[in-house]
Amino acid sequence: MTDFAATKAMFDLPEGIIYLDGNSLGPLPSTAGKRVNDMMAKEWGQMLITGWNKAGWMALPTALGDRIGRLIGAAPGSIVTGDTLSIKVYQAAASALELRPDRKVVLSDSGNFPSDLYMVEGLLRSLGSDYELRVVAPEDVAANITEDVAVLMLTEVDYRSGRMHDMKALTELAHANGAVTVWDLAHSAGAIPVDLTGCNVDFAVGCTYKYLNGGPGAPAFIYVAPRLADRARPALSGWLGHEAPFAFDLDYRPGTGIERMRVGTPPILQMTALSAAMDIWDMADMADVRAKSIELTELFIARVEAACPELELVSPRDPNQRGSQVSFRFDDGYAAMQALIARGVIGDFRAPNIMRFGFTPLYIDEQDVEGAVEILADIMNNRLWDAPEYKVQQRVT
Amino acid sequence: MTDFAATKAMFDLPEGIIYLDGNSLGPLPSTAGKRVNDMMAKEWGQMLITGWNKAGWMALPTALGDRIGRLIGAAPGSIVTGDTLSIKVYQAAASALELRPDRKVVLSDSGNFPSDLYMVEGLLRSLGSDYELRVVAPEDVAANITEDVAVLMLTEVDYRSGRMHDMKALTELAHANGAVTVWDLAHSAGAIPVDLTGCNVDFAVGCTYKYLNGGPGAPAFIYVAPRLADRARPALSGWLGHEAPFAFDLDYRPGTGIERMRVGTPPILQMTALSAAMDIWDMADMADVRAKSIELTELFIARVEAACPELELVSPRDPNQRGSQVSFRFDDGYAAMQALIARGVIGDFRAPNIMRFGFTPLYIDEQDVEGAVEILADIMNNRLWDAPEYKVQQRVT
Repeated sequence: MTDFAATKAMFDLPEGIIYLDGNSLGPLPSTAGKRVNDMMAKEWGQMLITGWNKAGWMALPTALGDRIGRLIGAAPGSIVTGDTLSIKVYQAAASALELRPDRKVVLSDSGNFPSDLYMVEGLLRSLGSDYELRVVAPEDVAANITEDVAVLMLTEVDYRSGRMHDMKALTELAHANGAVTVWDLAHSAGAIPVDLTGCNVDFAVGCTYKYLNGGPGAPAFIYVAPRLADRARPALSGWLGHEAPFAFDLDYRPGTGIERMRVGTPPILQMTALSAAMDIWDMADMADVRAKSIELTELFIARVEAACPELELVSPRDPNQRGSQVSFRFDDGYAAMQALIARGVIGDFRAPNIMRFGFTPLYIDEQDVEGAVEILADIMNNRLWDAPEYKVQQRVT
Repeated sequence: MTDFAATKAMFDLPEGIIYLDGNSLGPLPSTAGKRVNDMMAKEWGQMLITGWNKAGWMALPTALGDRIGRLIGAAPGSIVTGDTLSIKVYQAAASALELRPDRKVVLSDSGNFPSDLYMVEGLLRSLGSDYELRVVAPEDVAANITEDVAVLMLTEVDYRSGRMHDMKALTELAHANGAVTVWDLAHSAGAIPVDLTGCNVDFAVGCTYKYLNGGPGAPAFIYVAPRLADRARPALSGWLGHEAPFAFDLDYRPGTGIERMRVGTPPILQMTALSAAMDIWDMADMADVRAKSIELTELFIARVEAACPELELVSPRDPNQRGSQVSFRFDDGYAAMQALIARGVIGDFRAPNIMRFGFTPLYIDEQDVEGAVEILADIMNNRLWDAPEYKVQQRVT
């Protein structure tokens, strides 16, 4: 049984803040500062270039991949970390398309994170005008998995509403129609149990700065099913994915298995911080995390609906259809979120009118939920959001 | 006049080590540890998601770009940092090719860093079988800039020999033949004076973990000439390069100018370390750095040639043809380099037989050069490299 009091104690959370935005950027693991400091002083500072071997830097991308893999049902050796999620989306989509060269359609949905669509738009523009990115409504995906679809590319959990796709059913349907699947786990990894192996997924990608708590700009990851790993050709064919990077051959030969999905030099400071975050994940069982997450979101929804009638639930009411976040619609949601943040409850806002709250059992408990609702109710019922200082739009991520 | 004693004091260099491998990985700036620690504790830890605005994280990629720009003759607002160099090569080459859609040839040379060739190989495979990567010998580049070349892609300073291309002349010749230029500055930025504006370069890319001392996995950078910045379309079209990333539109619209070359979430820990490194660069003038670099390399060559007749100079003898490194050929170079490292002189080895030494005036002085040669001479003249422990090949970067 996961000890959530123990995991909560492993984070440096600021005094007086209830942080319901771990689905955008996870908080600081309390050991991360020292870990990065030691890495800088003892490894970079003292070992210099020899740190790539001596300190094991070169092995970090796959070592971290294996640790993430435990949370999402991926076999050891099937995940490598590096780059950003957008880059990994491009790499997965390009590799997937090459496995179905006779087809020209990538099917996705309008609930996908825009960058996924942008990256594939850019990729398809390179590939030629006979390629098509077909974007349908989330509820119409299944009906649109036709025999001209090369790649089905979806984000499992909708970043705005938290609505979940049925990964297993859609992957099966895609395979039955000859399509290759690419799943984005940005709001899944560390949020809900994922079983990439059991769902027979082909490619998956995700980021580590949200639920996994790797820090701002933490590396992304890519999964390739072991049955495809030696066939998939990375379009982003960088030297560290080469069979023999240090032979400095002029021709590219893809490395073995997941190694070929490496591109350039891995970001060791970020990876060291992520290692500290993964230590906390080692204390957790995803089934426990999910059970606790459902308790927290159910409690939050019940309390908010009782106290704030103006807020309309956008997330699925059925917890089995919902990721680890809850979103409400409110026309002045931007201002209301600013007012909440000013009172120490941090959630976020997604245009045009979504107030989004992430629930992360590793460091959020019932008391946090009750406290957040109390402040939210005060803001809503006394229209405290209706103040000029909360209405100035600024960039948020 | 740059005070090189003062810049040297700004690095944490290990006791008893002479570090001639700053062209692979620069050493630790002495303020970097505290800077990253503070960023983690005070920004990530305390500001959490709001750090993107409050701590200025979102502005770091271009702020750092401007600081790098000062060293390489780039106007403010023409460089953005992020991703790895391989990714930036891909982005630059793809964007450059789109500016000459009627041509299908990328011209490069066999002295280019292999990953640049690999990335373009992958890109061209996506674009179609009518595209060609034409790789010629470095000395044959000028003669091969013909009117079917869409993109001339070169690394200015050869990573093995240190041989420099004439950026101005080759760019002029490329333009006269209607080609777009992509210059890789991996061994130029912080090594030699570069004048991107004066040379009328179209695209340039580089890394920051070598001469710029940003740390292992520090971000890359990309330069786009201001005259092209609003025309060049990034093939890697990520959300942070969108005109309005936080509008979450489904369609990609490139942002203004260099902003469109952003892709995904920037690595803030790495960028913070790089900021500390750039503080030292603010103390330096590239003309002084170049003058000192030539003094150091001239001294090293003279001393080595006098003391170690078995070593054959691979780098150009004329300092004006040479970057900030010196390479010698020696058949047992791998073992000799291992023996050197064991004695505290760190250079590196590049297959098949190149011993490579980087000279970085910010922290290397004449005394270091004399000390390194003394040890090298001892190893060579007494065949100390001829020991089994130095002959086991292992991965080095």
